[in-house]
Parts: sequence; structure tokens; C-alpha cells
Amino acid sequence: MPAYPGFSFVIERRATAASGWANRARLGRLTTPHGVIETPAFIFCATKAAVKAATPDQVKAAGSQIILANTYHLIIQPGPEAVARLGGLHRMMAWDGPMLTDSGGFQIFSLGHGSVAEEIKGNRGAERPRTLVGIDEQGATFRSYLDGSIHTLTPEGSIQAQRQLGADIILVLDECTPYHVDRDYTARSMALSHRWAARSVAEFTRAESGSAGPQGLYGIVQGGVYDDLRRESAQFALSQPTFGHAVGGCLGGSPDEMYDVVGMAMGPLDDDRPVHLLGIGGVRDVWEGVAKGIDTFDCVSPTRIARHGGALIRPALSEQTRVRDHINLRNARFREDAGPVDSECDCYACANFTRAYLHHLLKAGEILAMQLLTIHNIAFMNRLMAAVRDAIRTDDFAAAQRHWLG
Amino acid sequence: MPAYPGFSFVIERRATAASGWANRARLGRLTTPHGVIETPAFIFCATKAAVKAATPDQVKAAGSQIILANTYHLIIQPGPEAVARLGGLHRMMAWDGPMLTDSGGFQIFSLGHGSVAEEIKGNRGAERPRTLVGIDEQGATFRSYLDGSIHTLTPEGSIQAQRQLGADIILVLDECTPYHVDRDYTARSMALSHRWAARSVAEFTRAESGSAGPQGLYGIVQGGVYDDLRRESAQFALSQPTFGHAVGGCLGGSPDEMYDVVGMAMGPLDDDRPVHLLGIGGVRDVWEGVAKGIDTFDCVSPTRIARHGGALIRPALSEQTRVRDHINLRNARFREDAGPVDSECDCYACANFTRAYLHHLLKAGEILAMQLLTIHNIAFMNRLMAAVRDAIRTDDFAAAQRHWLG
Repeated sequence: MPAYPGFSFVIERRATAASGWANRARLGRLTTPHGVIETPAFIFCATKAAVKAATPDQVKAAGSQIILANTYHLIIQPGPEAVARLGGLHRMMAWDGPMLTDSGGFQIFSLGHGSVAEEIKGNRGAERPRTLVGIDEQGATFRSYLDGSIHTLTPEGSIQAQRQLGADIILVLDECTPYHVDRDYTARSMALSHRWAARSVAEFTRAESGSAGPQGLYGIVQGGVYDDLRRESAQFALSQPTFGHAVGGCLGGSPDEMYDVVGMAMGPLDDDRPVHLLGIGGVRDVWEGVAKGIDTFDCVSPTRIARHGGALIRPALSEQTRVRDHINLRNARFREDAGPVDSECDCYACANFTRAYLHHLLKAGEILAMQLLTIHNIAFMNRLMAAVRDAIRTDDFAAAQRHWLG
Repeated sequence: MPAYPGFSFVIERRATAASGWANRARLGRLTTPHGVIETPAFIFCATKAAVKAATPDQVKAAGSQIILANTYHLIIQPGPEAVARLGGLHRMMAWDGPMLTDSGGFQIFSLGHGSVAEEIKGNRGAERPRTLVGIDEQGATFRSYLDGSIHTLTPEGSIQAQRQLGADIILVLDECTPYHVDRDYTARSMALSHRWAARSVAEFTRAESGSAGPQGLYGIVQGGVYDDLRRESAQFALSQPTFGHAVGGCLGGSPDEMYDVVGMAMGPLDDDRPVHLLGIGGVRDVWEGVAKGIDTFDCVSPTRIARHGGALIRPALSEQTRVRDHINLRNARFREDAGPVDSECDCYACANFTRAYLHHLLKAGEILAMQLLTIHNIAFMNRLMAAVRDAIRTDDFAAAQRHWLG
């Protein structure tokens, strides 16, 4: 059993029935060698070892506690050895706070099968080049999108790569089951993921610390949209000596199905380890996930929405009849709007600039618009998570949820 | 004669013959309603009311004293009235330091005739749409590159627009003479510019302050590459009640010709008003210009080079035999370079990141590369200007110039 020096997870409070919503929300302190994360927390994506359009000091100033990088992209470029030579991800990126890397599996399979998002939208990535060459007991073989070179990612190789990258929290390799496969495939895939998880744990136990010190290993609950498989996978996860758990896809074809599937996975997952929900992080997703016991979330959407001109905002402030979680500042109705992006926000963007100016920057094609909206959207998600933590602390979950979802 | 409340220019020291280079370099303090500029100084371009890829706080943290915006672009979008409604450029952009706007003329004529840079490169913009519709005594008529609408910019209209934009320093309208025209055209163009300058001064004297308070008007010395015309134009500029002077193009077809032309213009321009050199700002240009009495420079090149992966650096540090003022971090030789971008620089980018990481970001197409290199290149130019000021202060101009030009 790994010792996880420098790691701890303390659940400080659990929501009660009096919170107004029967739930398993919990307030926690996740300690890592690079600092403490107050949970529930949002993990911001630095896919290729950079939060898109924000410097690390801006990410931190916007209240962020933890970021993640994607092992798949970093295997392809610049390579984990190159990152290790530069002192690991923390030093290379100048981020001295907590950090997570995934196993690399998600991108192999989502780029290989077509992503979950594409499935939901009904376009299974027909025009996308297939990079997944094949899966067998040993691992997953894929083609580099950069130079066509062939790589095989094994559970051992994923852990070794994540050791070199050196993030605080690292993940076992799994097969991220696609949505359009049947129960039979899902069951076989889950069993393979469990064997890969066991090999990941064995490799983790064998190897030294990462390039930046001790690391904490998370297992992954799979099982697709099938209740019995999710429960079986959660039981397997509980049996493994990991520091934490993650819930992985496939999570279904709609938000409501996703919340159901998260509930299936969380059913048996009632120990004191932290639980991360992989790749999900809309505003409603956060409230639903926290209520089911999720401690951390990650999603590219806050920073991606920003690069398309979108500012996250409480629906009550969006002045639209259609409830949405963001406004698009390219819209002509903002041309003369002298108000801040979000009147409730005190981030650098909202404290200094108007919607009209952001509208101008977007129309003019200025990169600064992406930078300012990225700062705001990060600050918004961090403010949302602080509100979630307050709601658990004050045991007033339902009212807070209504306030944020409109 | 306008009073220019809140403005002053104090020449604190002049280089002597002992400086090692017969020159007219001078150390000054240019006071504006939004703060003091230590001169010689570099003015960074915020063309469309945004320094490309840098937030105002990053621009300031990199040591910048003053920025400029381009009236032509802001007339087309969002319009000077819209800027005035947002409180003027300073408030709209969240830049509370000194600011300059040009008259709009340069872009009308450079987009109309093909730019000076294109002429130097021998491609007179054959593929570029011509937006200049015509010039007459009244003003210049051009077509919006956004919607094809027709605008006429008159001297009065330029001053009115710059009043609404509200920068501290504003410019008279001139015709920016192209390079490929003959002496006769240049002489007639200069005479027209002088009549437009007089009308600009009259409008400036008539109107109220700008949207952000008092403003200081600069005249422009024209005359193309012809010594007698430059001298005549400088004499005219001296006769006008402006707060400062600018030297405008055409400046010639090569750097050496440009330095000669600047010398022609500066010959008679020996009063105590500040002098700005329009659109020029390479490292050698700065040393040559300062030696001829130029106090401020502007150029898009530091920020443009950054967006193409280039980091400004002293030639001695570039480790290349060919003397150049920057290194391109896309180059494979930086793939494993664990050193800072510029070992002499203490900017945020150099203090925190390696050349290898910047190389990775550029290869990965990450916007962060542009942001970090923009910060560095701004900091580099500000460090260069501080070195120029030190060289004048210590009267050791030639040695400092050798150090910076390699």
C-alpha cells in the first residue's frame, strides 16, 4: 500500500438533510505536496502545459487552486523526458500549486472513437482522422497527430510518463468506453480497465516519486451507463490502494443521464477518499455532482467559452429569457453596454473593462478579448465553487443552488 | 496660442562632445495630465485600443510609460463617439498613464499607397485593396475596410475625433507622402500638409479639452527625402504654437537613408519642444534617432515580433554570427534550451520560463507564447530606453551604443 507522504484528505463537514436537498455534498481539505485545495474545487485545464490565453499568475490571481495537464498531448510533444529535464511540469509551467495529470487514455479513446461531446451532438466525428490504431491486453496503440509516429500506451508507460511529468495527482490508465457501444462491450472494457488499474497501481508502488516529489494515485470508476457495471466498478475502485477515485466516461448522452450515471457510480463510493469527476464542469453539473458526493471537477469549457467571446454569468444577470450560463459579447446588444462583464465579479476583467469594450475587442479580432474573458471565466468558476463550499458550510444548499441556476 | 495646462517638457541634460559621439541626445521629463514620461522613451502601439496580447497591467509591469492608439482604426470601429461615451480611451482601455493618438492620416495613406515597409521590400502592395479614394484641399476620402462606407477625414475632423478619443498627446493631420513619388509631388504634398496643420491648430485652439482633459498638440515635419523641403517643413513646424513636433514619413528606402532624412528634419528643429519619430523603433533606429535629438519613438515591431515567436535580445546574447536584434524561439535549436529567454532580463517571462518551454508553446500553437514574448519584448524596449537615458546621464553614449548593437 503506497504511503502518499504529503497527501491527506479531511472531510470537514457533510451536508445534512436540513440543507434543503437530500445530498451527499461534503466540504473538504485536500492536501498535496504543492498546497491545499479547499473542496469542492474546480480544476482548470492546461492541456498542453498551458492554460490557454492566461499566464500562471493570472490563473492564480483569479482564485484558482489547481490545474491539470493532459499526458496524451505531452507524450506527443514535447515528451515526458523533456518535461522531466526541465524539472517537471510545475517548474516548466511556473505553477507552484497543486496539479493533476490524466493517464492519457481519455484522449486516445476520444480522438479514436469520436468524443462524447460529438456523440451528444449527433456527429460522431466522421471527418476527424482516427488516431486509435488498436487496443489489446497490453495497452492502446495510437498514431501521433503531429508526425504519424506510432505509440503504445500501457498502464506502466502511463504511470512512468506521469512520474516524469511530476503532477501531484495522477491517474490509472483506463479505456474510456464510448457511448455507442453495447453492454457487452462495456462490460469487457470495464474488466480490461480494472486489469489496467491493477497494473497501474503495481507500477506506481514499484516506481520512485515523480520528478517533483511524491504523487497521489487516483483510480477510475468505469461501467458506462449500466447501473450494475458502475456498482461493480466502484467496488473494484474501493478495493484498490489508491489515494482517490475518479469517475470516468461514458456518462451517457444527455445531462440528466449523466447525473444518473454519476449517481450509480457514487452509490457504493462512500469512503473518505476524494472523488474527481472527469471532464465535466458546467454550472449545473457542479451542483448536481457535488450533491452526489463529487469533490473536484475539470472541464475545458470555461476557458474554451472565453476564447469564443463568452462570459460565464449567473442566468439572472444575463437578461435573456432563455436560461443560459453565459453571454456572448460578440452580440450587437453589448455594443454600447457600459456595464462590467459581470456586475457580481471582482476579477481584473470585470473591475476594469466594460461589455462595450469587450465587444469592440472581439469585433476587432484582438487577442486581449480572449485573455480578459479567460480571466473572468476562471474567476467565475472559482466564485461558484466558493459559493458551493459556503452552501455546505451553512447547510443551505438548495437556496444557493437556486440562486446560481436561476 | 494654446496654454497646454498640465503639460511641460524639461530637458534635464544634453549629451556633450565627451560622450564619445557627436550628438544631440537629450534627457528629458515630459509631463502630461496622466503622468510623467522619462525621455528618451518608447511608445507601445495599442492600434485598435488594445496592446496586442497584453493586458494593461502587464504593459505597465513591463515598465511602459506611454502607449498610443490609431485614430484611423478607431474611426472605423467603434467610432470616436462610442469611445467618448465610454469615458475616453484611458477609461475604456483601463490605461491611466500617458497616451498618444495619431491623426489617422498615416493609415489612410499607407493603406492607400502601400506602406513604406512594402516599398522597402519592393512589393508595393499590389494585392492590397486600395482604400484611399482621393485627396483634395478639404481632406482625405477613404473607404472603410470593414463595411465599404466612405469617410472623409479633414484636419478639423481629425482633431475632433482625437478630442473624443481623449489621449494626452494628439497630432495634426498631414499627408504621409509615399516613397515612390517625385520631388514635385512631395513639395506640393508638404505645402498641403502645412495648410492642414494650420487648420488643425485652429481647430485645436477653438475646441474644448478632450474627453479626458487637456491635450497637447504635436505638429509634423514632412518633406520626404529632400533636404531643402525637410528644412522648410521644420521651419514651418517651429512657427506653429504646438506643444511638440513629430517627424513623419516618407523617410526613405533604407535604414541609412532614414537616418539621413531624420537628420535633415532635425537640423533646424532645435527648440525645447519634445520631438517624436513616427513609426520607427528598431534597436539601432533608437540609438541613431536619439543621437539626432529624437525624444520618443513608436513602432509595432516589438509586439509584432513577439506574436511571430521572436524575442528581442542583445546581439551578443543571440549566439548567432549574423547580427540580429531578436531570436526566433520556434527554431529547433531552442528545443532543449533550459535557459531564460534573455539572461539579462527580469521580466515575468524571463524570470519564470525557459526557452525550451516557449519553443514548446509555439510549436503547440498556444496563445500563451505570444503573451509571454509580448511581455518580454516590451520589457526589453523599456530596458533599452533606460540604458539610453543612463548613457546620456553618464555622458557615455558611444560605449553604451556599442554594448547594445554588438
